[in-house]
Amino acid sequence: MNIKDEIIKSHLRIAPYIHRTPVLSSDFLNSISGAELFFKCENFQKMGAFKIRGATNALLQLSEEQKQKGVISHSSGNFAQALALAAKSLNIRSHIVMPKDAPEVKKNAVRDYGGLITECEPTIQSRETTTRQIQQDIGATFVHSYNDHKVIYGNASAGKELLEDHPDLDYIIVPVGGGGLISGTALSAISFSLNCKVIGAEPFNVDDAYRSMQSGKIEQNKTTNTIADGLKTPLGNITFPIINKYVDKIIRVSEEEIINAMHLIWERMKIIVEPSSAVTLAAVLKSKSEFSRKKTGLILSGGNIDLSQIPF
Amino acid sequence: MNIKDEIIKSHLRIAPYIHRTPVLSSDFLNSISGAELFFKCENFQKMGAFKIRGATNALLQLSEEQKQKGVISHSSGNFAQALALAAKSLNIRSHIVMPKDAPEVKKNAVRDYGGLITECEPTIQSRETTTRQIQQDIGATFVHSYNDHKVIYGNASAGKELLEDHPDLDYIIVPVGGGGLISGTALSAISFSLNCKVIGAEPFNVDDAYRSMQSGKIEQNKTTNTIADGLKTPLGNITFPIINKYVDKIIRVSEEEIINAMHLIWERMKIIVEPSSAVTLAAVLKSKSEFSRKKTGLILSGGNIDLSQIPF
Repeated sequence: MNIKDEIIKSHLRIAPYIHRTPVLSSDFLNSISGAELFFKCENFQKMGAFKIRGATNALLQLSEEQKQKGVISHSSGNFAQALALAAKSLNIRSHIVMPKDAPEVKKNAVRDYGGLITECEPTIQSRETTTRQIQQDIGATFVHSYNDHKVIYGNASAGKELLEDHPDLDYIIVPVGGGGLISGTALSAISFSLNCKVIGAEPFNVDDAYRSMQSGKIEQNKTTNTIADGLKTPLGNITFPIINKYVDKIIRVSEEEIINAMHLIWERMKIIVEPSSAVTLAAVLKSKSEFSRKKTGLILSGGNIDLSQIPF
Repeated sequence: MNIKDEIIKSHLRIAPYIHRTPVLSSDFLNSISGAELFFKCENFQKMGAFKIRGATNALLQLSEEQKQKGVISHSSGNFAQALALAAKSLNIRSHIVMPKDAPEVKKNAVRDYGGLITECEPTIQSRETTTRQIQQDIGATFVHSYNDHKVIYGNASAGKELLEDHPDLDYIIVPVGGGGLISGTALSAISFSLNCKVIGAEPFNVDDAYRSMQSGKIEQNKTTNTIADGLKTPLGNITFPIINKYVDKIIRVSEEEIINAMHLIWERMKIIVEPSSAVTLAAVLKSKSEFSRKKTGLILSGGNIDLSQIPF
């Protein structure tokens, strides 16, 4: 099956389980950016982030036997909640391996959605070992939070919806972490637009995608020192080739630019987005001449933020 | 002209100058309240609050001569911005009298919309004297922020839109300050619904509307000690009779309940509302049995809050 058909089929498959999120605009932000901005509000998505799209698409394609044995993933962020909620909607048992120092608020959110948490040490190695152990013990199916074609095709539905609402976009700007959202968006842009370019936005402090596109191979982050906690994850061997082929380029932004953009979105649009989402507006404001008078979509990936930890 | 026709005409008059705001819902808030809630998002309205509706309706009915001489009001809150923006859209000069201790952020917002600020002492007397002086000097037309039929009919359009989207609401809950929004909403409910009751929500600390409905005459607030800064204003001799006749009752809520409701709206709906808006959800959560399984509209009146002054 070709890419376009796969995205259409995935979107139809998950539509009953997700929100079709609104696309908002702001006269003020158009005016200060000089661009025509269209914000795809995945912060209003179920569980507060786009990740429910990919998780649902993966779970709906499990066999009956797999469904009975449950699913497992490791995540300390939005994907943990997404997998737990998607599993709950489909009456599937979900196991989430979370580092024991993960914020209590995140663990509670996973529990609220019915996820069964196993705590591990706060290292990648411990996460992977613990996950493999549970996989072996109970035969649960592992679902990767982004490096998975089914997850990517599910995530692609956000860009597809945005292009259905605004078919003549010149650009779509997408945050880049592990690459699960931007790779899906890029596949939607080649499938459902004539000439829409997809651009990534990423913090300077975790600019692995920028450097990977320069070198042509997956580069690692040297620090994880960014407020955009959803964007610390490394690229995957499935997401990177798609990004490398179909993404136009990556714009990097500073921590200050992220916080400033987040403040603008909160103050002017009256919506709550997490720092990882605000990198998109920060990228536009950093490269005003490039986006001048261009119809530019921005995917606001999520709105899950601890309200006691607001950076302004 | 009867009330219904007046509201229809006002809505048509202002429609080109305002947003038709969305009505949002939340599975989570439905679940914890036991009601079916429909949030009318005036926080997404132009300048961030419903007040642009009434201000625009008043300005559009000025004579050419009045338009040339400009308009004036005194306000330290949302109405100052609303009048300035409405006047700017119509190429009318606006004068706003503001207490000299008003927050700089509010003065800047008025200036951004082209309003001409005259500062006065922070007393009602100084506000009124200064306003009258400017009125006399330049012949500007005074527009009251709520105690004005044209303002009330303009504000009524929010409830009308909500009932167009959800004609079978059992209740609409509205914050009560000076009464300009709830009186308009009540007039819309009698005009555009079969049996929708309008209920006010008000902080205990400024419960003048509650006590006025008990006594049958306008009572004054004894303190202005509430986080809901839009609800400190006294009732007017035009708004109160409408409230007394058409509003079902007033539910009072504590400061803690307001902050808790505001946190729930921010966290779960991912939208920014000011404390004055959160009183509506606080009222529902306080009187769960009354709203159990009822279709209940809540008017989220605005989203203008200083992001450095968040109470959680």
